[in-house]
Formats: sequence, C-alpha cells, structure tokens
Amino acid sequence: MDEDGLLALIVPRLPRGRDTVLGPGDDAAIVAAPDGRVVVSTDVLVEGRHFRRRWSSGADVGYRAAMQNLADVAAMGARPTALVVALTCPADVAPEWLADLADGMAQACGEVGVVGGDLSTGTELSVAVTVLGDLAGRPPVLRSGAQVGDVVAHAGVRGRSAAGHALLDAGLDGFDELVAAYRRPVAPLGAGIAASRAGATAMLDVSDGLLRDALRIARASGVVLDLDPPTAAFADDLAVLAPAAEALAADAETWVLAGGEDHGLLATFPPHTELPAPFRAVGRVVAGEPGVRVAGAAPRGPLGWDHFAGRD
Amino acid sequence: MDEDGLLALIVPRLPRGRDTVLGPGDDAAIVAAPDGRVVVSTDVLVEGRHFRRRWSSGADVGYRAAMQNLADVAAMGARPTALVVALTCPADVAPEWLADLADGMAQACGEVGVVGGDLSTGTELSVAVTVLGDLAGRPPVLRSGAQVGDVVAHAGVRGRSAAGHALLDAGLDGFDELVAAYRRPVAPLGAGIAASRAGATAMLDVSDGLLRDALRIARASGVVLDLDPPTAAFADDLAVLAPAAEALAADAETWVLAGGEDHGLLATFPPHTELPAPFRAVGRVVAGEPGVRVAGAAPRGPLGWDHFAGRD
Repeated sequence: MDEDGLLALIVPRLPRGRDTVLGPGDDAAIVAAPDGRVVVSTDVLVEGRHFRRRWSSGADVGYRAAMQNLADVAAMGARPTALVVALTCPADVAPEWLADLADGMAQACGEVGVVGGDLSTGTELSVAVTVLGDLAGRPPVLRSGAQVGDVVAHAGVRGRSAAGHALLDAGLDGFDELVAAYRRPVAPLGAGIAASRAGATAMLDVSDGLLRDALRIARASGVVLDLDPPTAAFADDLAVLAPAAEALAADAETWVLAGGEDHGLLATFPPHTELPAPFRAVGRVVAGEPGVRVAGAAPRGPLGWDHFAGRD
Repeated sequence: MDEDGLLALIVPRLPRGRDTVLGPGDDAAIVAAPDGRVVVSTDVLVEGRHFRRRWSSGADVGYRAAMQNLADVAAMGARPTALVVALTCPADVAPEWLADLADGMAQACGEVGVVGGDLSTGTELSVAVTVLGDLAGRPPVLRSGAQVGDVVAHAGVRGRSAAGHALLDAGLDGFDELVAAYRRPVAPLGAGIAASRAGATAMLDVSDGLLRDALRIARASGVVLDLDPPTAAFADDLAVLAPAAEALAADAETWVLAGGEDHGLLATFPPHTELPAPFRAVGRVVAGEPGVRVAGAAPRGPLGWDHFAGRD
C-alpha cells in the first residue's frame, strides 16, 4: 500500500478534536491556543525499546503513545488540545496494524484531535508523538516550585505497569488488570488542572518511577522529598499487586517505588491544602541536600527506569 | 554516554528562541501563541531513506530537518515560533554527531527556539521534528484556494537538491553549490508571510517535486495549474544545473520539474497582483479536470518524489 492508501485508511480514524481549526491535509494544521501560549511536548516510542508487537496490539501502542503525551500536558496543569504523529514503518507492518494504532490513539484522545502527521518507511517501527495544550490563563506548574513544608501528593495508580510488564515477560496468565495497565496506562489527566487550581507548587508525570521522578522535583526545587512508607502511602496498590508479586516471587514495593510508565501525577501542595481528588498525600517536603527519602531514609534498591535505555 | 550526559551536551547548543516562554527541562515547554491559534506540522527524517551519514554531517541533517519543518509553517503564511525534536539513536552514533546535529538545527532556526525533545535508543537513526508557528491574525493560506485566472508563482530554487543528490550518488566532485543545496536547502521562509500579505489564494512547500506538489494544489482547489515551459520559467535554475546535467548525462528539466527537497514555495495569486519578492510567475490557473500541465500539455516523465518511499 502506498502513502496515499495508508493515509486514506488512517486519517478518517483519527479524532478531529474540539480545538482543531484546520485538520490534516495541508502543509500544517491549526489548533486553537486561546491562552496565547501553547504547551508542547514530544515523546517517541520505539519497537523493542518501548513496546513489542507480540505483547501489544496496534491499538495498545497507539493508546499508550497518546496517553503518555497527554500526561505531559496534564503535568503542567494544562488541557491537551491536539496531537501530531510521525510514524516510521517497516514493510512487515500490516496496514491493519496502523489502522488499529489510529483507533487506539482515538480512544486515548477523546476530544483531543490528532491533527497531522508524517509517514516514512524505515527498518524500525517507531511512533513519535507531539502534544499541544492550553493553560487557560493559569501559570504552568513546574518541577521547580516545591517548598519546604509542602505536602507531597500522588494521583493515579503505582506499580501496575511494571507488574504487567513482568507478567508478560514471564508469560504468566491470569492477571488481566495488571497487563491492561501496562498496555493501556490511564493517566489522571483532569487531576493536573485540578492540582493547578488548588495551588500545586510543583508537579510532574511519573513516567520513569516514583523515586526517580520525585528526585527530579527535589533537584529542580532544591529540596528533599520525604515519602511515606509504601505500606502507608500505597496500601491499595500493594494489595492489588500482592498476588502477582507472589506468583512471580517479585517485590511489590519495588514496583510501586521504581516501576515506570503508570503516568500518575506527583505534585506538591502548600501545607493544609485540601487536596483535589484523586490526589492523596504520600509524603512531605523537607530541607536538606536535594534528594529523595522513604520514611526519612535513603531509598534502597533501584531508583527506577532509565527511559533512554528503554524497556519494551 | 547516558541520557543526562547527552542532554548536557545537546541542550546548551539549541537556540532558546524569541517566542519561548519555557524551554527544555520540564514535562513540556511553553511557546508564545499571540494569534490565539497555533500552526503545527511534523516531519521525520530516517537514515537510509532521507539522509546518509556518509553524505551529510550531523549539522547538515539537523539543518535540513529543521528547514523542512520551518518551510511547512511558511507555506501556511505563518511565522515559525518553535521546534521540538524526537531523536532515535543507535549506539554507533557518536555524541559529537548529535552535538553537530544540534548545531545544524540552531543554524537553520535563527530566532526560532528548539524548546524540547525526547531521546531514545534504537537500531535506526531518525529525527522527528515538530514545528509551531504563528499567523499574526492573518488567515492561513491553504492548498485549496486557487482560482481560475490566478497567476502561479514560485519562490526559491528548483532542481538543486535533486542535482546535488545525483552528484553524491555518482561520486562526482566539483559542484559544491549543488551538493550544498542538497545538504542544506534554504527555504524562502519570509516569502510565505509576504505571499499571505499580498493575497495569495493557495500555497505549499515544494518538497516532493514541482509537478507532484502543483498537482496537490490543483486537486485541492479543483483547477488546472498550467506551468510555463521550464526554459522560460526556470531559465536561471537550468543555467546553474546545465554543467552538472552534462557531466552526469542527466536531464536538468527533470530536476527542475520533478526534483524534491528544494523547499521552494509554490503559490497562486489573483491576476495583476504585484508579486512579492522573490516570487516569479511560472504559470496560470485554468479551468478543467484538476491536474497539472506544462505549456498546456500533460507532463511527460516522472511527476516527482514519493516522500513515503523515501530517498536518502
């Protein structure tokens, strides 16, 4: 199938989007940017590094590629407005797989349009997504604003994607919810705006593991993030993870603290803030050499996932 | 070198940009969008399809990747405001090559910032660039607005990139200007805004060849683009190309009509418009079954380059 044929298959499946002024088909698309500033982020998923076709359908990959980008906008306290996609595609990828990818993107996007893209042949399958977003007049929530005394809070699930990955890697059936969490992570997108409105001082998307990403806030803000013990802060996640951890002889606390790709939001709020749902307090900001602690101590074990080195 | 090391090498080389509100380092960047709408386009360059490292330096690839995206914004009649870059990088690519890539992007970008990116390992080297732009209150110039009676005009060079590619392919030295035009095409970026101000009815970036891209305007507008004979419309390009064409026993007219990647702008203007420099009249819009003609006849030979199939 040639480029025109593939586009005719894919483009009708992509969501138009409520902020789309001009969709695909010209040299560029046009997206509403009512704030007068536009939030922009890009992420690439590469086969063998970030996904495997035998573990994830085209729709799963499309869903995940879209969601991790949407989460980056949410983590600024903004609302996603559009995606564009650059797809590099080996000859062995069936057109149906690409149609499925578009369907998965549409499922993750909801009212966010996929407004443009580029298709290239290549030897390696990769999906590079760029997301735009609107701040609606609010200041962005950066990583650098955490203050000593702030509450550390988290929205979303923890450790599920890592557990799902481990289950697929082991070929172990019977934990569909965890495998689904790996294939199609659901970021709490609306929580980003809610956090901004509630006065969050710092925020990020937890893509590389709680400890590794908490360290990014700590370093950017010049503070220490002291997290509660997982048994207190993430008791419900640990309960969900326990059967799979037992089946794999794995450590559920490591999944919670170091597992990547759940795309929860980690934020800090001034003390006594009424945390917007679904944020829960998971620690506090204290003074000291910038770093991360768990229950006051240096964390043991792996910090998290090196996104550059990848994990499929 | 790990991701942090690479970022420390690359990020300082990237231009900050006059429209950048927040640069790299957080979950997303923020770019000014004073128009209240943002223009967005994405393009990916894949090694072996769109470039070869033995033909192009890292800076050449970075320059070209940036320029072809900037040209897409210009072709809407807009001003580029920012780029983001998703880079997939095999282990055999030296950090210095990536630093060189960043330098080349900076050279193409001028005051346009490179505000964010993503790095992944992979087996295939690819550079996916997304560009943003601002319309400053003007309507976009689409492909679909050409009217019967309009003048067809072109800004920029023709056939130079195709000639440079053919020279590199043949290993023929002595035509540095043409090889440079392949390695570092210079799109007439300011001409896009000038065309919009002058009332251009349709416009696009000529990336896949004059005939192929003229056909896109013709089909989108439901008209015929009747181009003047190349000997009249592109006499200066033919003069520049003649020695290389002779050395390669190639056809300079085919380079002019079907060669891709020069990134000139093709536009249509109402009759009697005073064409803004450097646009020159190269044909007229006539009624008929949508298509392209050269001197009133169906073109012979190849239409142009299939961007999807690629050419390195």
